[in-house]
Amino acid sequence: MNRKPISVLLLFLLAGAFLNAHAQSNTESLAEKLGFSRDARILIVHADDVGVTHSVDAATIKALETGLVNSASIMVPCPWFPEIADFAKTHPGADFGLHLTLTSERVYYRWGPVAAKDKVPSLVDENGYFHHDWTPATRINPKEVELELRAQIDRAYAMGIHPTHLDSHQYRLYENGQDLFEVLLRVAHDYKLPVFLARDWLADRPYLESSLSPADIVLDHTITIDPGVPPENWADFYKTALKNLQPGLTEFVIHLAFADDEMKAATRERDTWGAAWRQRDFDFFTSPAFRQLLREQNIKLVTWRELAHAAQQ
Amino acid sequence: MNRKPISVLLLFLLAGAFLNAHAQSNTESLAEKLGFSRDARILIVHADDVGVTHSVDAATIKALETGLVNSASIMVPCPWFPEIADFAKTHPGADFGLHLTLTSERVYYRWGPVAAKDKVPSLVDENGYFHHDWTPATRINPKEVELELRAQIDRAYAMGIHPTHLDSHQYRLYENGQDLFEVLLRVAHDYKLPVFLARDWLADRPYLESSLSPADIVLDHTITIDPGVPPENWADFYKTALKNLQPGLTEFVIHLAFADDEMKAATRERDTWGAAWRQRDFDFFTSPAFRQLLREQNIKLVTWRELAHAAQQ
Repeated sequence: MNRKPISVLLLFLLAGAFLNAHAQSNTESLAEKLGFSRDARILIVHADDVGVTHSVDAATIKALETGLVNSASIMVPCPWFPEIADFAKTHPGADFGLHLTLTSERVYYRWGPVAAKDKVPSLVDENGYFHHDWTPATRINPKEVELELRAQIDRAYAMGIHPTHLDSHQYRLYENGQDLFEVLLRVAHDYKLPVFLARDWLADRPYLESSLSPADIVLDHTITIDPGVPPENWADFYKTALKNLQPGLTEFVIHLAFADDEMKAATRERDTWGAAWRQRDFDFFTSPAFRQLLREQNIKLVTWRELAHAAQQ
Repeated sequence: MNRKPISVLLLFLLAGAFLNAHAQSNTESLAEKLGFSRDARILIVHADDVGVTHSVDAATIKALETGLVNSASIMVPCPWFPEIADFAKTHPGADFGLHLTLTSERVYYRWGPVAAKDKVPSLVDENGYFHHDWTPATRINPKEVELELRAQIDRAYAMGIHPTHLDSHQYRLYENGQDLFEVLLRVAHDYKLPVFLARDWLADRPYLESSLSPADIVLDHTITIDPGVPPENWADFYKTALKNLQPGLTEFVIHLAFADDEMKAATRERDTWGAAWRQRDFDFFTSPAFRQLLREQNIKLVTWRELAHAAQQ
């Protein structure tokens, strides 16, 4: 009995060492395959939640056109998905992934599964929408998750999108145990799509590392602003993050929209990730100040398409 | 063989006479039960499509608050349904019916059934949305229509709405044969809800009349603007209609929204029932000119709630 804690500790240390080695060799070689030095600071500026509202679509399209935001991911179950699918189809160079979605977190504006709702009963509430939130009492069935993820990806392809990567709305597929993460990986492998994953997360959740295959891409870092930052310090937060950017591959996870009537109404029950928040992100990431910082700091932008291409070499 | 045309003609004449008698006795007594004289001009000013976008919700709520628009109907499958359901729940005096919806007629913004889509395959397209349109090749299964209508009504009640009436988005349930109209009537009778139906329509579609029971409410007239009216003549069309309003019960079917970014984007593929159209309707039906005309012309407004109550007396 007394030996158990030591064994567990050893296992953790070994896992940590493997994880570190895996991630380092993976991303170092990726940087080099991308044509950069080992210590280059490489950035994906990634806009989440595309398709959720028209405001998010319009702001993301405008930001992508500046070239300063260079990747985004799309919520297939959402009402404005057809608008962004049409844009993606007519702009095949744009770097769109799928923001796999299993929750409908707003109050006055909601959506539900792409799969038939009677096939995914654990994913929907009593009114047929995705759950507003997952609580300890919510029993999510991984088989239903797999069915729904495949339905979302299939609809995306059917409507003309060729996604460059997958990620998970509200991190649900990373933060809810090995079963759901393995579903995400299995689906990603089947469709030959890279999954957004950052080395930052692995220490807290050993199951993330243990499920990976050597071919999976692991970014070094991810940076996203949090509700603790006061609105007046928004730009400073990002400027500091850019100045202190570490060598390797980093993804900035940002949330764009215009603070217009639609977006204010859709998010009015709380400020977090709301209309004003997203307008602040739009303002910073399309600003001359951001462009200048990227240049001054010699930060290189890459897309998921470039990453996946490099990883296959 | 030669006698057939005469028999058919006789049948039509008899049906027409019955129809006229039914409608007249029905609406005359309704006017009187409502406390008006037989020749009173009684109007429902009815906004369609509530729930389809935030813009439509916001404009309809604002118009209802003026008292000049006094009834509306809600599209349960649409993304902004939860917003209007919340309003209806907190404003139980508002006169909301359900705008039963079986199509998703826009291009960049779409919705699908409330029932599980594998239970209503004839109602959905290859991407799982309601059909954009019904063509002669679209085979709509009436049993699936009934399942979907009941799902919409059940969700409305579950989310706190007590509808005062039923009608049909794009008139699909009136204009596509007896089977679908009988589904509408059967469902309406089951839920004890009146169905919007105007005597104007009966001559062209004898099956409407033949399916009715004596207790069904039949309005005398319905007026809705059509795409042939140039924008600059919008107010004149309505003013003329009001001045020439016939005795009996009339429903103005109108479409409200603000011509904002969301609404322009949602309707951008065509002008008909688009953002500018709906802004013009909003502008007229909330105007002092409309209020003054109602007064000058001694036109009485009634709601579906009042109609249903009077019909039960």
